[in-house]
Amino acid sequence: MAPPIPQERAAIDTIVATYRTRGDAARAAEVARFVAYEQTVELPPALITDPHLLAHIVGRVLAIEPDAQVQDSQRFRIAYNAELASRSLAQLLNLVYGNVSMYPALRLVGLELPDSVLRAFAGPRYGVAGVRRLLGVYGRPLLSTALKPRGVPLDRLAQLAYDFALGGGDVVKDDQNLVDQDFDAFRFRVERCAAAVARANQSTGRNCLYFPHLAARHEELERHAEFVHGLGLRGVLLCPMILGLDGARALAARHDLVFMAHPTLTGVYVHGEEHGIANHLLLGTFWRLAGADVAVFCAPGGRFAYTESECRAIARALTEPLGTLAPALPCPGGGMQFAEIGSIAARYGADSMLLAGGSMQQQAASFVAATRAFLVRLSADCEVRLTEPDRAWRALR
Amino acid sequence: MAPPIPQERAAIDTIVATYRTRGDAARAAEVARFVAYEQTVELPPALITDPHLLAHIVGRVLAIEPDAQVQDSQRFRIAYNAELASRSLAQLLNLVYGNVSMYPALRLVGLELPDSVLRAFAGPRYGVAGVRRLLGVYGRPLLSTALKPRGVPLDRLAQLAYDFALGGGDVVKDDQNLVDQDFDAFRFRVERCAAAVARANQSTGRNCLYFPHLAARHEELERHAEFVHGLGLRGVLLCPMILGLDGARALAARHDLVFMAHPTLTGVYVHGEEHGIANHLLLGTFWRLAGADVAVFCAPGGRFAYTESECRAIARALTEPLGTLAPALPCPGGGMQFAEIGSIAARYGADSMLLAGGSMQQQAASFVAATRAFLVRLSADCEVRLTEPDRAWRALR
Repeated sequence: MAPPIPQERAAIDTIVATYRTRGDAARAAEVARFVAYEQTVELPPALITDPHLLAHIVGRVLAIEPDAQVQDSQRFRIAYNAELASRSLAQLLNLVYGNVSMYPALRLVGLELPDSVLRAFAGPRYGVAGVRRLLGVYGRPLLSTALKPRGVPLDRLAQLAYDFALGGGDVVKDDQNLVDQDFDAFRFRVERCAAAVARANQSTGRNCLYFPHLAARHEELERHAEFVHGLGLRGVLLCPMILGLDGARALAARHDLVFMAHPTLTGVYVHGEEHGIANHLLLGTFWRLAGADVAVFCAPGGRFAYTESECRAIARALTEPLGTLAPALPCPGGGMQFAEIGSIAARYGADSMLLAGGSMQQQAASFVAATRAFLVRLSADCEVRLTEPDRAWRALR
Repeated sequence: MAPPIPQERAAIDTIVATYRTRGDAARAAEVARFVAYEQTVELPPALITDPHLLAHIVGRVLAIEPDAQVQDSQRFRIAYNAELASRSLAQLLNLVYGNVSMYPALRLVGLELPDSVLRAFAGPRYGVAGVRRLLGVYGRPLLSTALKPRGVPLDRLAQLAYDFALGGGDVVKDDQNLVDQDFDAFRFRVERCAAAVARANQSTGRNCLYFPHLAARHEELERHAEFVHGLGLRGVLLCPMILGLDGARALAARHDLVFMAHPTLTGVYVHGEEHGIANHLLLGTFWRLAGADVAVFCAPGGRFAYTESECRAIARALTEPLGTLAPALPCPGGGMQFAEIGSIAARYGADSMLLAGGSMQQQAASFVAATRAFLVRLSADCEVRLTEPDRAWRALR
């Protein structure tokens, strides 16, 4: 039984969260009531008699219906007073899935945010348009790669970066496993890779971007970010679930840098149909609220088992209207094969970025040639509109 | 087939992670090899031929054996070069379960850390002994409660805090849902509750502690922490998985405050037997590395479905020898019933803290009386050694 709802409740600005749970409608109604109390007052319903709490604080169960995607499951929607999110990304996450993450067979599958909440977030600083402006590349998907593995000589990493830029690649980022022992090691490595990309850019007349991975101890993150910015680099790779979602947002907000988000550790959140947070909400909506300009996720056909519909939903959440927040670039990666590049590019459209690492290193004898081959394949199914820098570079070949 | 291991490998300091996966030994061997490469070089094995990478960077599969706890499952151990953790808690988490969190049916169930890694972490600043010293309470489990719900008048929260302290309670903390709109609201609320506890302490001669919840936007956390410290309060409640594990560690490291850790959002990590991170590693080992002095977890019999053996494992991980890190206080909570308090206290021993919220508010007409009743029940099965402040307070009654 849902709690009594006095009439003035209609005037409250609400966050509507949709959950999936196992079982029939009667069980779902019990679970829904549990969630509505647990995530707000966290006291047994019998203790909540104050009309103000019932009207303004306890979540309101809106609807329960069979889940169309998962058998023997129901979906229910709960409206939370938007003020309970305290205009904070950390608290929003805590409000919609904090304690109930410890409840079995309950998954957050939908999230509708009112303007009063959305206004608290700047969102992507660059977004699709800003990243394109920096690159001067339009009309085709962007190509990115990862510098790896950790443990090879710096020369080798710098050479990879150089070759990728020379081959016409757009964004070269550090691998999320590429983490240094201290600031000096980071500085030395980043300087070398940045110089290699700059040298290649001089040859091509293009503007390939290099994004180092910011992964220092919390106390050192600021110094690393300032160094990257001071070096004239335009972006960084961040791992939001390692840094903490709101920590990543704040770090990106403090620095004029493109924020490319990596999905490491997201598997604990999104794994399975029965529990956790839907992929498109975490890597789509939450990351976009955190300010991610580029969101890396694992494409179907790679070495992680995500479905095509999950990935499409992530791409949609990154690009669909969301208050005044800029759209972010969907960036499928995670072991795509060369033969699939064209179809993946076609699927996500021109406004996407593809991340190819190992498959490019495997593809051809030279990384320059591999990059070129990937770019050709990438553009094949898309209408390509060349810009001036692109034209100049093609003429150069 | 495991990668070839040159002999010098034996000399490397290693982190040994144990994983559980589904299926037979042959499948487990494949998965183990996948993990060993994915978490280190993140390139297909065919591309890794450099003897240095094979000897020093790629993880080494140590053993594969049937899992004793879960049917049709295997356990395997991987030794990682300890340097790959970069003396960072964030990177340690990334190393042992970052990308592979996106792999199905793989759970991190064990973690052995060498001294070279443990030395990078200060661990609990107070630990069991330090919290007892602050309280002046020895020889019995400690009792804590949560101020809630959000939305009631401040008077009501302050009264709860006062009553709990007057009833002889040890630690009153904010609920993890008790989050304020801004600094002024936080300051006003915390001052009121702190004053209420101080007034009760004057009556009792005891030293009940009040821990506010630090949950502001990332940019404001420092100011909130400084305010709490400036007010003379001795501890805070932090939600490590909301703040980010290393962010929580750094915040606690910067301030001389007891760090009580709340399990909100941990469900995504620990849920289920097949995926994620074992409860005792996340809420035990990782939280202790982050410096948690008190670790709240959901006890069996409450409203979340954790098993007794899981909870015992958490308590063990919090208190067993771990380098030179102080033991932390296990703090079962999450809807324990009054009748079970004695047996729970007996199970976790004197060096634990029990968290009772709703069940105490339900227990008796007066919160003072409820606190006293819980304390009596709590001490019943333990050998109680009264200290001077305790004696004075008992005499006062």
